[in-house]
Amino acid sequence: MAFQSFFRPEGIVLIGATSDPSKLGHGVAENLMTFPGVVHFVGRESGVMLGRSIYASLEQVPDPVDLAVVLVPAHAVPDVLRACGRRGVRSVVIASGGFRETGHEGAALERTCVEIANRHGIRFLGPNCIGVIDTHVPLDTTFLGPSRAPEGSVGFLSHSGALCAAVIDWSRGEGFGFSRLVSLGNQADLTETDLLPAVAEDAATEVIAMYMEGIGDGRGFVDAALGTETPIVVHKAGRFAAGQRAATSHTGALAGDEAAFDAAFRRAGVLRASSTKEMFDWARSLAWLPAMRGPNVAIVTNAGGPGVIAADVVEQAGLSLAKLSEATTAELRILLPPAAGVTNPVDMLASATTEQYAQSLQTVLADDGVDAAMVILPPPPRQRAEDIADALASLNYTKPLVVALMGGPAIGMAADRLRAARIPDYRFPTEAAGALGALYRRSTFRRHTLCVSPADGGGAPIAGEGWLGQVAALALIEDSGIPSVSTVGAADAGEAVRAAASLEYPIAMKAEAPGLIHKSEAGGVILGLENPTDVRRAFHLLSERHKGLLGVVVQPMVSGDQELVVGVIRDPQFGPLLMFGSGGVGVEGLKDVAFALAPITYEDIEYLLSETVAGRNLPEAAVREVEGVLVRLGALAADHPEIVEMEINPLVVRSLGEVRALDARVRVGQSTGQEPDTSIEG
Amino acid sequence: MAFQSFFRPEGIVLIGATSDPSKLGHGVAENLMTFPGVVHFVGRESGVMLGRSIYASLEQVPDPVDLAVVLVPAHAVPDVLRACGRRGVRSVVIASGGFRETGHEGAALERTCVEIANRHGIRFLGPNCIGVIDTHVPLDTTFLGPSRAPEGSVGFLSHSGALCAAVIDWSRGEGFGFSRLVSLGNQADLTETDLLPAVAEDAATEVIAMYMEGIGDGRGFVDAALGTETPIVVHKAGRFAAGQRAATSHTGALAGDEAAFDAAFRRAGVLRASSTKEMFDWARSLAWLPAMRGPNVAIVTNAGGPGVIAADVVEQAGLSLAKLSEATTAELRILLPPAAGVTNPVDMLASATTEQYAQSLQTVLADDGVDAAMVILPPPPRQRAEDIADALASLNYTKPLVVALMGGPAIGMAADRLRAARIPDYRFPTEAAGALGALYRRSTFRRHTLCVSPADGGGAPIAGEGWLGQVAALALIEDSGIPSVSTVGAADAGEAVRAAASLEYPIAMKAEAPGLIHKSEAGGVILGLENPTDVRRAFHLLSERHKGLLGVVVQPMVSGDQELVVGVIRDPQFGPLLMFGSGGVGVEGLKDVAFALAPITYEDIEYLLSETVAGRNLPEAAVREVEGVLVRLGALAADHPEIVEMEINPLVVRSLGEVRALDARVRVGQSTGQEPDTSIEG
Repeated sequence: MAFQSFFRPEGIVLIGATSDPSKLGHGVAENLMTFPGVVHFVGRESGVMLGRSIYASLEQVPDPVDLAVVLVPAHAVPDVLRACGRRGVRSVVIASGGFRETGHEGAALERTCVEIANRHGIRFLGPNCIGVIDTHVPLDTTFLGPSRAPEGSVGFLSHSGALCAAVIDWSRGEGFGFSRLVSLGNQADLTETDLLPAVAEDAATEVIAMYMEGIGDGRGFVDAALGTETPIVVHKAGRFAAGQRAATSHTGALAGDEAAFDAAFRRAGVLRASSTKEMFDWARSLAWLPAMRGPNVAIVTNAGGPGVIAADVVEQAGLSLAKLSEATTAELRILLPPAAGVTNPVDMLASATTEQYAQSLQTVLADDGVDAAMVILPPPPRQRAEDIADALASLNYTKPLVVALMGGPAIGMAADRLRAARIPDYRFPTEAAGALGALYRRSTFRRHTLCVSPADGGGAPIAGEGWLGQVAALALIEDSGIPSVSTVGAADAGEAVRAAASLEYPIAMKAEAPGLIHKSEAGGVILGLENPTDVRRAFHLLSERHKGLLGVVVQPMVSGDQELVVGVIRDPQFGPLLMFGSGGVGVEGLKDVAFALAPITYEDIEYLLSETVAGRNLPEAAVREVEGVLVRLGALAADHPEIVEMEINPLVVRSLGEVRALDARVRVGQSTGQEPDTSIEG
Repeated sequence: MAFQSFFRPEGIVLIGATSDPSKLGHGVAENLMTFPGVVHFVGRESGVMLGRSIYASLEQVPDPVDLAVVLVPAHAVPDVLRACGRRGVRSVVIASGGFRETGHEGAALERTCVEIANRHGIRFLGPNCIGVIDTHVPLDTTFLGPSRAPEGSVGFLSHSGALCAAVIDWSRGEGFGFSRLVSLGNQADLTETDLLPAVAEDAATEVIAMYMEGIGDGRGFVDAALGTETPIVVHKAGRFAAGQRAATSHTGALAGDEAAFDAAFRRAGVLRASSTKEMFDWARSLAWLPAMRGPNVAIVTNAGGPGVIAADVVEQAGLSLAKLSEATTAELRILLPPAAGVTNPVDMLASATTEQYAQSLQTVLADDGVDAAMVILPPPPRQRAEDIADALASLNYTKPLVVALMGGPAIGMAADRLRAARIPDYRFPTEAAGALGALYRRSTFRRHTLCVSPADGGGAPIAGEGWLGQVAALALIEDSGIPSVSTVGAADAGEAVRAAASLEYPIAMKAEAPGLIHKSEAGGVILGLENPTDVRRAFHLLSERHKGLLGVVVQPMVSGDQELVVGVIRDPQFGPLLMFGSGGVGVEGLKDVAFALAPITYEDIEYLLSETVAGRNLPEAAVREVEGVLVRLGALAADHPEIVEMEINPLVVRSLGEVRALDARVRVGQSTGQEPDTSIEG
């Protein structure tokens, strides 16, 4: 397995060891003492520390050494890396700070480190990280204090070291533990994408949690996520900290900085949590519970109010309240008092006994219409919550069960019992339902199938830079197989009249001028010209309105039942991103759009059409046509990395489902290097 | 103060006392023993219990007795109420279950109890409730176990007794306590609206939390909420449990069951939390912190990652990242190491000392551009979190401060210190930002001002029941002062031709048939008829399409720049509810609508216009016209309780801002009794 020396090395050396207990280097030394293999110290002091010699240099350290943990001042790190190279240590954790995060000088130093590492075949983590933990070895290269990471099955990769520290401490009260933790720091060399497989494929790991602020190789991450069966939950932050993308199309404005992440996570089957807490709430259910085959949840409660709340949040989590069978309700009627509620939520009343809890749960789980259950357990008036927990834990069943164990001190022991039995407990129904929702989405995730593109695979790169003219843009669209409206360019009024004559009156005229992108909004479109006089007048009007008018295009008037927008923006992290939705002049106000990575998959198409009002309102006859446009535009973007923005608005849907591109904008620029691997299939 | 005997009685009698410790009646007796005043027991046993005599009947109990707590079998409750009446006990808690919640018989018994109470001037809480708690008296009429409610300043009213039990236990770990708690049960007599003032005006109460599943008198609740300065946070559940409203208009379909609650809470300045936990997260900040004057938050952190998360969630909570002044950043530069981030978020680095925490916070709070601060405190690498907490607590400042105190056991003592200093702590930045967002919304809430209606106050009720004809509906709209398009009815083709002749060609024809509400969708509208032949053909076509055609209406063709929808639905809990948004055929698909209670306020208008794409896209010239329509339609609904649904769709906006109602639907039915108090002003 790759990067094994970071988690199960034969011998570790700490470079920067010190006996001063106020120094971080001492903290690392202490934590390394739990490692059952070879550990050596290198430091400026001489003598013995924690029962081991402190060597003056790496040369003096005896074999084996395959992992170095470096905590020396930043300026000394390059020399340490060279020493590692000479000694044949190929795995290094650079915990030291003082690099890119401090400014230009630090960034230069960081680049030097990368060069040295590359020269010596060294892979390193950091700098500016707290290192790695494998609780099962155990190995802990961090300087974190007494609150050691508890053993468990959550693998955690984090762009923030402080968050690791906080989460390790917090996890004790939440009753889960970790398999491997990786603090990624500045990711000068190794990234979350590199290390994901090493954490996911560890036998102790049942789920991956990731705290992420950005991503270097977005398509690589998608592939890595698809390369493991281990479920992945991400908390992605940095939405508002990130700089705004420079984009002039509607697509760019509407995509913001998060649309590509959402599209990529959807394709990769990665679950996106909205907070750190939610990420770990979901992770426990994903780690401990069997797959959830359908969306139907049965709620078993001893109290009406929490049952009402649970019914709400089950629906909000994208799940359904299971409809219990007649046999089930009949059985519940026998088990429970007459006043009990035997439909879902099953309300056993406050008098519910331990046996009633167990039997009611067993009964609903046996119902074929039930895919998962949520038991609600507030401090019971006349019983001990831990007895009920024990009874739930001793049942036999194969469907997912979560418990809303509501309370504080009175339910502490019950929580311990449930956790020991791998039944996730949450303080409120909201979190319990959210976890089931995540489990269901993950359980029903299927790998996407890439649409077969009818395009010919590209041809020569498009010449030039900046926005193409309207005629050229529509011609490019038309060449890719997307039908567009006849469009003729004209440089003066006379040409415009001749162009109009080659079409059919009434016609529309659109201005072409530098910086004129959204023509309708800027008064650059004149519709319904009936005759040559109208055309001349319109040309002169546009000349007056738009200084530096380069010319106009004329088109026949096309009306349609629906106006769509289809666009592509090249995301710096994920490459081409396709947008679909309601088009026309008000597109940015309507915000009725959805996004998918290009080239797109059959699952993406289903998503784009079901997620938008535009898609849901599409006449049946137009669906295949629109699918064709999405596939072709996605292929065009994938084949031409030089297209940085591209948009058809409106794409008009006419009667009988015919679609026509009425206007197109294409911007040509520098490729960002993030290109899709079009081989993702099956 | 009203209902004082429920919280500070002179003498209490428990009816249903028993020495059997497995019975709830014993639990109540034990809890009542903490009451410092007079407590008596009535029960079927004779003898002494908990040092007090058990009396056989209420007659035997010595004075004073002004509160009875009743826990006898349901069938015995009426007699107990009669006895209370005879004895002059006017305040009763009926804890017994077995009433409406169990079916028809129980409901009848409950009605009997109400009748008896009314006859004797008794006000009672319940049945099927756990009663009241006042932690400061202390008084506890519940049967809850050893986990007594901690003292504090949160007043809690709950439609669920079990939730009270769970929340009391849970609150201990969260570090807040209660002033008064009320479990409302079936609310056969007293409701949350009745008791809200008694909890809000208690001197110990600083914030009200309410768990609510529905509401009887919605307008009364709005008045009660406006009648107190105490902030109110509600968790309203029952969204999916509630039965679907019977409504045929788009307005009814789009309103769902929650729109009226949202509109009412907005008018009343009530904050709506999405979960129980969020409600109490917000409540602590509302109780402990001063008002937040502006939206600008400064973040002070010792770690980058949590700072990035905090920046995200501050924006998501509707707040802004404060822009620090140059003086502030200069001062921070002196306080902090060179690599620290001195813009917002202020990143003091992992080495941050206790002094740096305190001084950095003091510095940003002194900045005029900062309205509140969030300090982020993960377990610090080389310090004790509690020392930092102490330093923060000892500062002098007048702006709100929240702390994201991230961790578990390592930050437990720090949490205690902060809570003692009334600084709210949250485990993650998400909750901390959410609480500040709630505080800001509450701090900036201003009472609404009702729009002055130009209508004449109603006139005679509209005759009939069911949907009005199109001509009548548009006439009603027109009479109320809303301009509409000329509309002429016709019963046969000849009449239709004559009607068309009285207008101007081209004209539009619309079918009128039983059950035909959404005419366009059902093929009941034919546009662009150019001459009498067209009109005849169209009439015959509509006759064929619509069995039982009652006739048609004809209108001149009207085109506009924008189609709006304006509607009213009469909510069973809150009375007339007004909808505004994007209209036309696709109105339900677009879902671009917002709601306000009718008659509306100036603040509502601002909200409706800013919350919808339709409102934001409205041409400046049309704003006053649209405002006029909203005010008039709201007044029409308020003046005519017999209108149960009413909708103008489309309301067309023409050039120069002129608006015209093109189609209207009005349904007349039974008034629900929920009528607005139009005197809400100032």
